[in-house]
Amino acid sequence: MRQAVYHGDRRLSVIDVPETPPAAGQVRIDVAFTGICGTDLHILHGDMDQRVAVPAVLGHEMSGTVAEVGDGVDGWTPGEPVTVLPVLPCGDCTTCRAGHGHVCPRLTFIGIDSTGSMQQRWNVPARALVRLPADLDLAHGALVEPTAVAVHDVRRSALTSGEHAVVVGGGPVGLLIAVVARHAGGHVLIVEPNPRRRAVAERLGFATADPAGPDVAAAVHDWTGGDGAAVAFEVSGAAAAVATAVDCLAPRGRLVMVAIHAAPREVNLHRFFWRELTMLGARLYSADDMVTAVAMVASGRIPAADLITTVEPLHRVGDAFAALESGAGVMKVLLDCAGPR
Amino acid sequence: MRQAVYHGDRRLSVIDVPETPPAAGQVRIDVAFTGICGTDLHILHGDMDQRVAVPAVLGHEMSGTVAEVGDGVDGWTPGEPVTVLPVLPCGDCTTCRAGHGHVCPRLTFIGIDSTGSMQQRWNVPARALVRLPADLDLAHGALVEPTAVAVHDVRRSALTSGEHAVVVGGGPVGLLIAVVARHAGGHVLIVEPNPRRRAVAERLGFATADPAGPDVAAAVHDWTGGDGAAVAFEVSGAAAAVATAVDCLAPRGRLVMVAIHAAPREVNLHRFFWRELTMLGARLYSADDMVTAVAMVASGRIPAADLITTVEPLHRVGDAFAALESGAGVMKVLLDCAGPR
Repeated sequence: MRQAVYHGDRRLSVIDVPETPPAAGQVRIDVAFTGICGTDLHILHGDMDQRVAVPAVLGHEMSGTVAEVGDGVDGWTPGEPVTVLPVLPCGDCTTCRAGHGHVCPRLTFIGIDSTGSMQQRWNVPARALVRLPADLDLAHGALVEPTAVAVHDVRRSALTSGEHAVVVGGGPVGLLIAVVARHAGGHVLIVEPNPRRRAVAERLGFATADPAGPDVAAAVHDWTGGDGAAVAFEVSGAAAAVATAVDCLAPRGRLVMVAIHAAPREVNLHRFFWRELTMLGARLYSADDMVTAVAMVASGRIPAADLITTVEPLHRVGDAFAALESGAGVMKVLLDCAGPR
Repeated sequence: MRQAVYHGDRRLSVIDVPETPPAAGQVRIDVAFTGICGTDLHILHGDMDQRVAVPAVLGHEMSGTVAEVGDGVDGWTPGEPVTVLPVLPCGDCTTCRAGHGHVCPRLTFIGIDSTGSMQQRWNVPARALVRLPADLDLAHGALVEPTAVAVHDVRRSALTSGEHAVVVGGGPVGLLIAVVARHAGGHVLIVEPNPRRRAVAERLGFATADPAGPDVAAAVHDWTGGDGAAVAFEVSGAAAAVATAVDCLAPRGRLVMVAIHAAPREVNLHRFFWRELTMLGARLYSADDMVTAVAMVASGRIPAADLITTVEPLHRVGDAFAALESGAGVMKVLLDCAGPR
């Protein structure tokens, strides 16, 4: 079978390897599609060399069908469509026992800490499987994992119907957050410098603002009738975006920190004090978020056609990563891992 | 009657002025004690010149007795002991209607935006009065307002019984937070560089750490059995303290930002993301917090004798401010506004 391998130093190759049967407790999946995550791009750029042991098979945003079940696995039948919850908490620490296994200090993540789905067949622990509806387009099924991120972020914000939310960053995650926030009854504005991404956001019915244009906080002030936004999501990772998000918030506003800021950022703590703002870090998702995400994708509420801008066959994995890096008109890039069908 | 006046440029004087009867809706209070707040010191240092119109009478941490009621005031009788809730929200904006009047953008604060209690007689709106128990030592009554700050901060942290809380800054507010947090069932450690303040904290039964000593985060790690603290309160205003507080927190930990940081601070946002930390700005208090604070002070749970280190007569207001500035062994400084009794 075919497998994409990351060798470090920005090098990717596609090789043929023998198939391995699933071990006890595992299920072998015929992988249909694997989306390339921003984290995969970080890995390719060497930002996570300390964590990722090369050679590595990346990939955790995926869909597929059950191909074979290992010993001791019940409840799964070959042919069933599935995705994977790649979060494996230790289950035993204080954080896990408090119900927050997704931020367990000993958590491992399939596709980063162990072999991922950028291959034709994939063995995973049966407990990681998440059922997909039988009639779901499997290309859309690969959007369940990033949708779970958005579901988690919006849940963390405690957004309620009628509130105003600003999403700073209009890439795939930002758009998904916007869609989930709107579904929760929020009024959503997306701050995004790229005009093509703004155009996508506008086509989907969102208000937009260009951070390079006039004062975004003033625009949000007007948009909210003078109050400021109840919620902001920082999804861009840009230093200036943190200040933008903070400045947009109404008294008691909540800032959800979704993006990875590798360096410390200057934060206006006086404004946090003065307006009693709240900042909430948001990482990954729970099993419940994943179930909600399946329902969101299956219902057609996630604009899959606007999000999936590129599909490349697995053997063109290098081109697929290059397309994502090119930015501009590209949103979500999928690898078709099934090969010719 | 005697009145302490702030003239700007660090100048204070004490003058004799005629008494004014209370206007309609007002109550005249015979002021017993007025505590000097850190904010009063900021004003003296000129940090709030844009807000404070001089000449000004400062003071908002106070106790006294009702002396005379103005027209239209019901429910108050001369001689009743009182303190004042100095927070006057507009009552009409989105923030006020959401129940967060203490962060109303149009809020005014008695003793900063209008005349304060550093005088023998003080006219205030009747709606600002808060009843004190008849048998309460009025010197202790002047601690109700700063105790309300601590009650609010601990409430904002959502601390639950058995959780570990780190208080960064062992001045009066930090100590009060520690006491309130312990009363809520928390295990409390105070981080404070001043050995005399650490000694007070230790005498009151708190664990302490010196930020100039070995790694505080490692000490907290040990103190919490490897988990990190559930809650941290940043009360010091020091740039380095923000990093200390963040580093002490367990996954899903909450950082309450109590101190005023006039300049933006570098914050490790990656850790907020990674551990799903929460930062909550905390400012002032609600009427409910004040009622809880009255009960805390009246019950004797607030260590008034340890907190009140200096009492000066009103005419020595300059010495009183100087004592507070001297730091070291000084905690809370009260002005005795009643004069010879």
